[in-house]
Amino acid sequence: MRATVALAAAHDVAVGAHPGFPDLEGFGRRELDVTPRDVEDFVIYQIGALGAIAAAQGVRLQHVKPHGALFNMAARDAALADAVARATAVIDRSLILFGLPGSELIGAGWRAGLRTACEGFADRAYRPDGTLVPRQDPGAVIHDHETVVARAVRMVRDRTLEAIDGSVIPLTIDTVCVHGDTPDAANLAAGIRQALVESGIEVKALRG
Amino acid sequence: MRATVALAAAHDVAVGAHPGFPDLEGFGRRELDVTPRDVEDFVIYQIGALGAIAAAQGVRLQHVKPHGALFNMAARDAALADAVARATAVIDRSLILFGLPGSELIGAGWRAGLRTACEGFADRAYRPDGTLVPRQDPGAVIHDHETVVARAVRMVRDRTLEAIDGSVIPLTIDTVCVHGDTPDAANLAAGIRQALVESGIEVKALRG
Amino acid sequence: MRATVALAAAHDVAVGAHPGFPDLEGFGRRELDVTPRDVEDFVIYQIGALGAIAAAQGVRLQHVKPHGALFNMAARDAALADAVARATAVIDRSLILFGLPGSELIGAGWRAGLRTACEGFADRAYRPDGTLVPRQDPGAVIHDHETVVARAVRMVRDRTLEAIDGSVIPLTIDTVCVHGDTPDAANLAAGIRQALVESGIEVKALRG
Amino acid sequence: MRATVALAAAHDVAVGAHPGFPDLEGFGRRELDVTPRDVEDFVIYQIGALGAIAAAQGVRLQHVKPHGALFNMAARDAALADAVARATAVIDRSLILFGLPGSELIGAGWRAGLRTACEGFADRAYRPDGTLVPRQDPGAVIHDHETVVARAVRMVRDRTLEAIDGSVIPLTIDTVCVHGDTPDAANLAAGIRQALVESGIEVKALRG
Repeated sequence: MRATVALAAAHDVAVGAHPGFPDLEGFGRRELDVTPRDVEDFVIYQIGALGAIAAAQGVRLQHVKPHGALFNMAARDAALADAVARATAVIDRSLILFGLPGSELIGAGWRAGLRTACEGFADRAYRPDGTLVPRQDPGAVIHDHETVVARAVRMVRDRTLEAIDGSVIPLTIDTVCVHGDTPDAANLAAGIRQALVESGIEVKALRG
Repeated sequence: MRATVALAAAHDVAVGAHPGFPDLEGFGRRELDVTPRDVEDFVIYQIGALGAIAAAQGVRLQHVKPHGALFNMAARDAALADAVARATAVIDRSLILFGLPGSELIGAGWRAGLRTACEGFADRAYRPDGTLVPRQDPGAVIHDHETVVARAVRMVRDRTLEAIDGSVIPLTIDTVCVHGDTPDAANLAAGIRQALVESGIEVKALRG
Repeated sequence: MRATVALAAAHDVAVGAHPGFPDLEGFGRRELDVTPRDVEDFVIYQIGALGAIAAAQGVRLQHVKPHGALFNMAARDAALADAVARATAVIDRSLILFGLPGSELIGAGWRAGLRTACEGFADRAYRPDGTLVPRQDPGAVIHDHETVVARAVRMVRDRTLEAIDGSVIPLTIDTVCVHGDTPDAANLAAGIRQALVESGIEVKALRG
Repeated sequence: MRATVALAAAHDVAVGAHPGFPDLEGFGRRELDVTPRDVEDFVIYQIGALGAIAAAQGVRLQHVKPHGALFNMAARDAALADAVARATAVIDRSLILFGLPGSELIGAGWRAGLRTACEGFADRAYRPDGTLVPRQDPGAVIHDHETVVARAVRMVRDRTLEAIDGSVIPLTIDTVCVHGDTPDAANLAAGIRQALVESGIEVKALRG
């Protein structure tokens, strides 16, 4: 973990916390019937631990993005979203909270006085309501490199997206997510960046 | 955890971190063959997590005291002691590091530029070399209330202690430990405090 | 654990497995969005581990009763109930499966060819549909000794129960649960047994 | 886990338990100061859990081989070795216990009335006393495919081994270990098998 943070710092890559459910076996991807207080507790715990690891390398956390099932639950449940935002704000008011555009999480960030960043998932299929198609459903994850790059450019340049039913939905994002466990993720990220630049879009760090 | 911190704060009791081995089944009381880097990593992690929980209640950690087998190993192994001290200092240079008088841990605290506090264990038997009799040995833990109180007063007032072999050893301490899981621990702490005051000793908070 | 099994065996008390979600922090009492395959996997794992511990003491498991949120989910979800029953049957077809009367779990036990036992909770409030009032709701747990004993006798003798809304519902049970973490649980169990006997009811072991 | 067992069964590969310390972070490779009773408890637990998973696939465990630091500690400490052997025997007397030739573990297996199998490590350097060079020491793991194959053949055919100091030591083994996390482990195993056959050695399953 410290080695990863050090590597990020050496390449001027920002580091953020990705807190999730304490469900190692399910990799945090199974919904858990938690209370807002539960969420506050473990988000504080996780940001605190990672923040200390980062601080030991001279790095300050830039953002917080809930992981897996917590991200999805906080997108639609205002009380859980507020718990994430409160936990984030109590640690450091300058942390940027990531969420789906239009989600409860982004609203909770505003309510807590945090900067927020709306995130687009170039390699995930969307439902017409702007939420992600669940991982276990067919077609949820898009593997084709060209398609993913094209979706990313469209999201940023046109502020639209083709949902899984073929409908076109509006979407305004500040940042594009590429999953680190996608095969060839580094090339994919480089490809998206290059395509964005070639489309005349300036790519900037969130924390200017 | 947050409720405990809040309770401590409400009663003006200082809060410290008590980092130990990631060995839940053995309650951190079994020695584990760790490297200094292992120790640095999990001490940073644990202080970071607890520090965030405390900060969420408006409380700042006062001290760090390794737990169980880590406390004993860091008392005699300079490399592990330095790892604990480095991890503490990298988080917050104002944290006070607790250790046995004359232990490697206290030396490591000095080397890392930390304030240190030497700790006496009124309810534990000592070996003639000033280390604790291991818990599994007979007579390691002293249960009699009167005896424990008398030992505490003697440690503080006379700066001596009767070791398990009957020899009298010198010992200079800054703080007295009462284990929270000792039956009637609160009364024991109150009894020690009263006996110290009646002996003409002023009891003060470490962070003045 | 082995000491507990040995103690039970010495007193001729049957031992059963109580498998639940791998959620230590939530003590298995929070619902987790698991698949039937997940459930099969961890129920096999948990019965297997406990069965070996019991076997090492010369004890054979008598029954299986899912714990906490798994018990509640398997009461109403046939696919999860079948997963529990399949996992139980694959380990040992002579194990008795416990469940709420009329629940999916009891049905799944039948489908898997297992003996089943319907369980009554003398210290828990019921909803009019025969399910338990969730723990976090007011009045969910009944603390008064006399009331609990009287409810147990009524369940067994009259095969009825007063639900939380005052309605009287039918209920046929084979076994009465007393939670081990209820204060004074041993006296409560003894009290229920005595009251049953005084009502002319013969109390017998499940495995005759 | 169940999928792995099923795959092994489909290819007529025997399955064994590989119990180790409950130290996930250290992957069971750090020595832990456990008592024989601790070892008995977690070995029973682990064999029990895996045995149930295997039984659910219609597979019976063939052998038990302690993992990592437990393997090394049980090689030299008779009390811990006896604990492993007792735990194995109490579960199933037909299980074969694996250990280093001449180790306390093999002796403990005999004392417990178990069949034993002496194991050779073709990809690990040995000390002149027949124990393994610890992993963290230079040269501990041998990576060259040809060298590993040649060492395996020499162990089996000549019953000798060149230790790390160049001395030749006698060694009689029943089975050769190839670590599953060695890159290209499957090819290595196939290469060793072929070389053994070409040397006129018959390769047979342990459980005949």
